[in-house]
Amino acid sequence: MTGGAPVKIALLGCGVVGSQVVRLLDEQAADLAARVGAPLQLVGVAVRRPARHPEVPAHLLTDDPAALVARDDVDLVVEVIGGIEPARTLLLAALESGKSVVSANKALLADDSATLHEAASRAGVDLYYEAAVAGAIPLLRPLRESLAGDRINRVMGIVNGTTNFILSRMDATGAGFDDALAEATALGYAEADPTADVDGYDAAAKAAILAGLAFHTRVTMSDVHREGIGDVTAADLASARAMGCTVKLLAICERIVGADGVERVAVRAHPAMIPRAHPLATVGDAYNAVFVEAAAAGSLMFYGRGAGGAPTASAVLGDIVAVARNRVSGSRGAGESAYAHLPVQSIGEVDTRYHVALDVNDEPGVLAGAAQAFAEQGVSIQTVRQEGRGDAATLVLVTHAAPDAALDATVQKLAQMPFVRRAASVMRVEGMAGD
Amino acid sequence: MTGGAPVKIALLGCGVVGSQVVRLLDEQAADLAARVGAPLQLVGVAVRRPARHPEVPAHLLTDDPAALVARDDVDLVVEVIGGIEPARTLLLAALESGKSVVSANKALLADDSATLHEAASRAGVDLYYEAAVAGAIPLLRPLRESLAGDRINRVMGIVNGTTNFILSRMDATGAGFDDALAEATALGYAEADPTADVDGYDAAAKAAILAGLAFHTRVTMSDVHREGIGDVTAADLASARAMGCTVKLLAICERIVGADGVERVAVRAHPAMIPRAHPLATVGDAYNAVFVEAAAAGSLMFYGRGAGGAPTASAVLGDIVAVARNRVSGSRGAGESAYAHLPVQSIGEVDTRYHVALDVNDEPGVLAGAAQAFAEQGVSIQTVRQEGRGDAATLVLVTHAAPDAALDATVQKLAQMPFVRRAASVMRVEGMAGD
Repeated sequence: MTGGAPVKIALLGCGVVGSQVVRLLDEQAADLAARVGAPLQLVGVAVRRPARHPEVPAHLLTDDPAALVARDDVDLVVEVIGGIEPARTLLLAALESGKSVVSANKALLADDSATLHEAASRAGVDLYYEAAVAGAIPLLRPLRESLAGDRINRVMGIVNGTTNFILSRMDATGAGFDDALAEATALGYAEADPTADVDGYDAAAKAAILAGLAFHTRVTMSDVHREGIGDVTAADLASARAMGCTVKLLAICERIVGADGVERVAVRAHPAMIPRAHPLATVGDAYNAVFVEAAAAGSLMFYGRGAGGAPTASAVLGDIVAVARNRVSGSRGAGESAYAHLPVQSIGEVDTRYHVALDVNDEPGVLAGAAQAFAEQGVSIQTVRQEGRGDAATLVLVTHAAPDAALDATVQKLAQMPFVRRAASVMRVEGMAGD
Repeated sequence: MTGGAPVKIALLGCGVVGSQVVRLLDEQAADLAARVGAPLQLVGVAVRRPARHPEVPAHLLTDDPAALVARDDVDLVVEVIGGIEPARTLLLAALESGKSVVSANKALLADDSATLHEAASRAGVDLYYEAAVAGAIPLLRPLRESLAGDRINRVMGIVNGTTNFILSRMDATGAGFDDALAEATALGYAEADPTADVDGYDAAAKAAILAGLAFHTRVTMSDVHREGIGDVTAADLASARAMGCTVKLLAICERIVGADGVERVAVRAHPAMIPRAHPLATVGDAYNAVFVEAAAAGSLMFYGRGAGGAPTASAVLGDIVAVARNRVSGSRGAGESAYAHLPVQSIGEVDTRYHVALDVNDEPGVLAGAAQAFAEQGVSIQTVRQEGRGDAATLVLVTHAAPDAALDATVQKLAQMPFVRRAASVMRVEGMAGD
């Protein structure tokens, strides 16, 4: 079964992930050939500076990715460059010339997967991207295939290791955001420019990809409500701790049936408090974990390394084997499934819970005044407690689920009340019983 | 995309799982058709007593499964009867006549999947069986496809809900095995004849299937070392608790490189103590969870409902969609991958740790005598402690990993020593740091 014509692979990019792909293709060549039914042959590696890649045989290196993609003898293009351009142009060229594509590029796939899927469909080739979300964790294939006979209602998870490391450190040490970020940078958990991670762009892109697969609907980055962790304070963590919670940056994809009977999808990525007893609360450092709730299957959890060269390369290799098998057998995997065309719910209409901690003057009528602000917006309060006295009095409220816009309006109103000195901590709460 | 000719399905069996398959095929017909690209049409349901199935349209029911399988208009046979015969004969007939097969039958697939795979391969059709292991949890597809580019070294998990319920109750209440089994039976967690679960046959069958996929090697039930939980006592649970552990029935599949340099697989299902801090320790009641360790991906965990009608039906439906898509597109999924032909390691040569609690006479030289028995077999002791004095003295030892046969011989020797009144608890220990 390994004597078939080789499947010829072009690799675009050879950084942390790409270099591991090169290594594994070489080290596991015999196993991979047996699994595919034909050898996998790396025929070219496009990098910016060929001289800096002694780990790749020199004759494979090129600094011209477009020429590599255009080669007639390439069957399969593997893209681990990241970013939208030139990746999009290169992959479209690959697909249009009948080459299958394996990509780890979440930004590109969240920006506009439709164009890529349509190009793949027209050419009758494969477009796989398991490595784009949650690194080594098999997640996209289970959503796309294993749960293809079920109705997925919710996907919620920790999909960004950098922010999870920072929040874990803030939780463990009481450090503020800046100190925890500095530690993450020093240890290599955060990039020199941490914007994509810290501001939630990375998590939002992954949420868009997950929602698209879960709900059979095209979802792009612009459909995702995104909030980063840059404003999370040591006070937020302390407040979370006081109520038995911790803070995590969550990607949440929900199927919502509105009061009008219309089914919509809501997709968001933001920091939230979750109970310490929740399985996601114990996911530490650079690990990722994702919960999936489906009508028949119930709750499922997937857990593993969400980033890193070798784990991400494992996911890339899995896709390479699948795509190569398809080419050997003359078939094609499942293409895009976006038949449902569900509209996107804006964040204001999504039901969430809020935790609100207010520094208040310790005077009669404070609780009544605060309660009135919630009541005016139709938000019901689950718990309230006052901590401290005098100048150090804090009123801590946790609401029941209510439309996000109503909660936001309530908080705005509270902040203007004369007895409120400061809103010390305002954050959504997820994963509580009764959600 | 839904206007293609229907994919026609014959269902064999309509019990707890089958009735949910019927329901979901009906309720989700539009979604399933959109995902497959053609409608799924249930054309027959074979049951023992048609009169007892008012939930199925009468014209679909038959008590002749062989005739149903033989019908020319059937594309896909779904088997949820369980047991080896008549399932094997029916499925072979289906495959030989060019029908694809979806099965949830772990006993059959662990007994001899090779014959079925070979029949599927000859006919160029699909044989899928995600529901055979860990119910709704996507596990076989990730092993077979997502990790196809990686090297899996270990699979370890809780794959039997009945025994997990019983052991969870024994842990929580201090009850003995018989009382916990009675409770499980009363609550419907255990079948009237609980032998397959309690004696570990179910877990062993699942271990065989997992090992086959993980190691690309044919593994059958007879290759699996199996021990049930019938001999687990309240004293074992108490002893586990005293060392910060609990007891779980584990399925363990390992790739082992022997002293001779030969790579082998070791597959076992037995009760074991695991630390309470281990993620598997908190998997309660009827849930399943499986750890997978792969060279590049690192540790992955999959968690969800391991049994029950709807969860298992979700896995069956996922396979139906995959197989139906393949038929619509004229392709075929990945077949059996058993190229590695790794030999099976006997349990005696597998390295494990033991926990041994001995009721001893409280006299000088006891520890020296016990230590000598371990030393003679080359087994090194990690911890030892003595509890109580006089008639209630207990010596508790935990070993480092050593060949199972050496540990077994040590325990035999200890039991015969004059100062040992009784071996109160002997059990393997898994998941400790340093394993």
